[in-house]
Amino acid sequence: MKLGIVDTTFARYDMGGVAINTLKNASPHVRIVRYTVPGIKDLPVACKKLIEEEECDIVLAFGMPGPEPIDKQCAHEASQGLIFTQILTNKHIIECFVYEDEANTPKELISICEDRARKHAFNALRLATDRNALIKHAGKGLRQGKPDVGPLKG
Amino acid sequence: MKLGIVDTTFARYDMGGVAINTLKNASPHVRIVRYTVPGIKDLPVACKKLIEEEECDIVLAFGMPGPEPIDKQCAHEASQGLIFTQILTNKHIIECFVYEDEANTPKELISICEDRARKHAFNALRLATDRNALIKHAGKGLRQGKPDVGPLKG
Amino acid sequence: MKLGIVDTTFARYDMGGVAINTLKNASPHVRIVRYTVPGIKDLPVACKKLIEEEECDIVLAFGMPGPEPIDKQCAHEASQGLIFTQILTNKHIIECFVYEDEANTPKELISICEDRARKHAFNALRLATDRNALIKHAGKGLRQGKPDVGPLKG
Amino acid sequence: MKLGIVDTTFARYDMGGVAINTLKNASPHVRIVRYTVPGIKDLPVACKKLIEEEECDIVLAFGMPGPEPIDKQCAHEASQGLIFTQILTNKHIIECFVYEDEANTPKELISICEDRARKHAFNALRLATDRNALIKHAGKGLRQGKPDVGPLKG
Amino acid sequence: MKLGIVDTTFARYDMGGVAINTLKNASPHVRIVRYTVPGIKDLPVACKKLIEEEECDIVLAFGMPGPEPIDKQCAHEASQGLIFTQILTNKHIIECFVYEDEANTPKELISICEDRARKHAFNALRLATDRNALIKHAGKGLRQGKPDVGPLKG
Repeated sequence: MKLGIVDTTFARYDMGGVAINTLKNASPHVRIVRYTVPGIKDLPVACKKLIEEEECDIVLAFGMPGPEPIDKQCAHEASQGLIFTQILTNKHIIECFVYEDEANTPKELISICEDRARKHAFNALRLATDRNALIKHAGKGLRQGKPDVGPLKG
Repeated sequence: MKLGIVDTTFARYDMGGVAINTLKNASPHVRIVRYTVPGIKDLPVACKKLIEEEECDIVLAFGMPGPEPIDKQCAHEASQGLIFTQILTNKHIIECFVYEDEANTPKELISICEDRARKHAFNALRLATDRNALIKHAGKGLRQGKPDVGPLKG
Repeated sequence: MKLGIVDTTFARYDMGGVAINTLKNASPHVRIVRYTVPGIKDLPVACKKLIEEEECDIVLAFGMPGPEPIDKQCAHEASQGLIFTQILTNKHIIECFVYEDEANTPKELISICEDRARKHAFNALRLATDRNALIKHAGKGLRQGKPDVGPLKG
Repeated sequence: MKLGIVDTTFARYDMGGVAINTLKNASPHVRIVRYTVPGIKDLPVACKKLIEEEECDIVLAFGMPGPEPIDKQCAHEASQGLIFTQILTNKHIIECFVYEDEANTPKELISICEDRARKHAFNALRLATDRNALIKHAGKGLRQGKPDVGPLKG
Repeated sequence: MKLGIVDTTFARYDMGGVAINTLKNASPHVRIVRYTVPGIKDLPVACKKLIEEEECDIVLAFGMPGPEPIDKQCAHEASQGLIFTQILTNKHIIECFVYEDEANTPKELISICEDRARKHAFNALRLATDRNALIKHAGKGLRQGKPDVGPLKG
């Protein structure tokens, strides 16, 4: 299994590094290719290149949009591109974006980055190895970056 | 006939399970493949994989967007991806999303989830078996998740 | 010439039926295929199937979005899908949507539905039979569902 | 060189006609194909048909969105479709839209229509004949429909 | 290595020229192709033509959206087209847009244009020559047009 990590120089935290550490600990033999691009809108083609030129089975795409409306629009365009790339390649790209205004302090933001990167690294491992791995968690209100909210209680 | 069920670990209710029960009761011999992914934006490629790698004739895609603007944007991007996937594959994907802010209480939300999942499971069965099945309901103001509103009375 | 009619069970008026009557009166020998789907986002793939599996030369797509923001977003996504389908197939799909909040009374809404469906049925007939048919109306301020506004008078 | 003109019956001014006159005066031997469709969302496939079925080298697409939010959304969807069509065909489509609320009087609106149509007709001629034609105008603050604003003066 | 430069006559500063000077100084033997189009929505197909007809390995796309909402929508559509083009071609297009309302004075705007064009020219050079070049800058909070903000300090 070969796993791609794509991240940006725009982001203010090294989520790609967190994911790589997580993956190496969890699955020492997984092959990892990393690719860093300037900004979030460069992610889709970078993912496509890792899938088609490096034969990655799955890719994790990290980005950290700034707090301005234009940043959110860029993230929206990037997400559309990531979805489109997945559809064309039949490979998952797990999008792991952290918005700079998700938290009130840098410390809290870092904690979101680490939790989200780590949990999505596990999600990528599971999806790439076993299509049935997540069925038992369906509808369970899992969250990445923050604690799970759990299923509805009616 | 082979029917795909795709749902998420993000959702807070097991709509995929509701649909599977509905389908098995209504049509005991239908073959069902289930695939659970982390979030709503992972649905399009999961549907595409079920259509192309598992040869599903139709897919039901379940998601439950949260109440924040970013959640709604994710749902929008997912919907665009689901439509795009259908166009590329010439197969229907019945989107069954329930928004967390559609209801005032968890109980009401669960009731929407169950009704919508069940009705769309029937829609999928009908569309996959007979292209003429729904003509008699054209313009009738049918709703899923809530009671039908019926046709306009002028 | 073969013409497709796609409409929904969500809509509250049978615009597909209006179009079929219009077409049969105007052009008794035209072949018509009808396909009814649950909602507006199911239209694009249904049109694509009529074009590719039923060899329709042109399709009319009817929908009636509800008054909520989410309904308008669904219509937007459907429109993008319809445009995309046309581009991929090189066939026209005449979109005929009536928004539930376009009128103040059901009676007025029905009148919009009938006028728009009838006029777009004629548009589809013209486009499918003669590429030059509408040139004489270019820039004339024609409207469907409401009276023409006419060209600018400077 | 073969140039396509696509316009609508929805528009309230004959910009296609203005462009045709401009082109015939400027380049008497250019071949022109005209195609009129009902509305702005019908433009993308019409352009694609002119490019692929009529072998046009470049197309001018004219539209006049109305003043309502839904009109602007339609224009947005049409623009996305025009860009997508260009990407698929590797041919330019010069979009020439005039918004009904760009001006305060019909007279002023007509003046915008004429200026924009004429200038974009020249742009199309230049792009289709010489890839280097516009380099000398790069960053010069040229405008169509209104006077040029010129380059920044710092 | 062959690098494309695409820019517009709409922009009010010659960012393409800045990039070309930067590239020639940094890498005298790089081959550069320049292509100027009328507006920002003409960029995607121009980039695609440089990639496919001129065999560029990477393209820089420059645009300067005006301050009105319609200008921002055009930029959004252009960005979607640029991402889509990259996905279809597996080549990077570095988008370098400067919004006219990013600065309070023309002088400040010119400074943004020059900094952003120059830094993205270097980004393009790096991406096109070595996939590993930017890894050491991942998550470092780099910015173009303005000073780097640096990584989060928790």
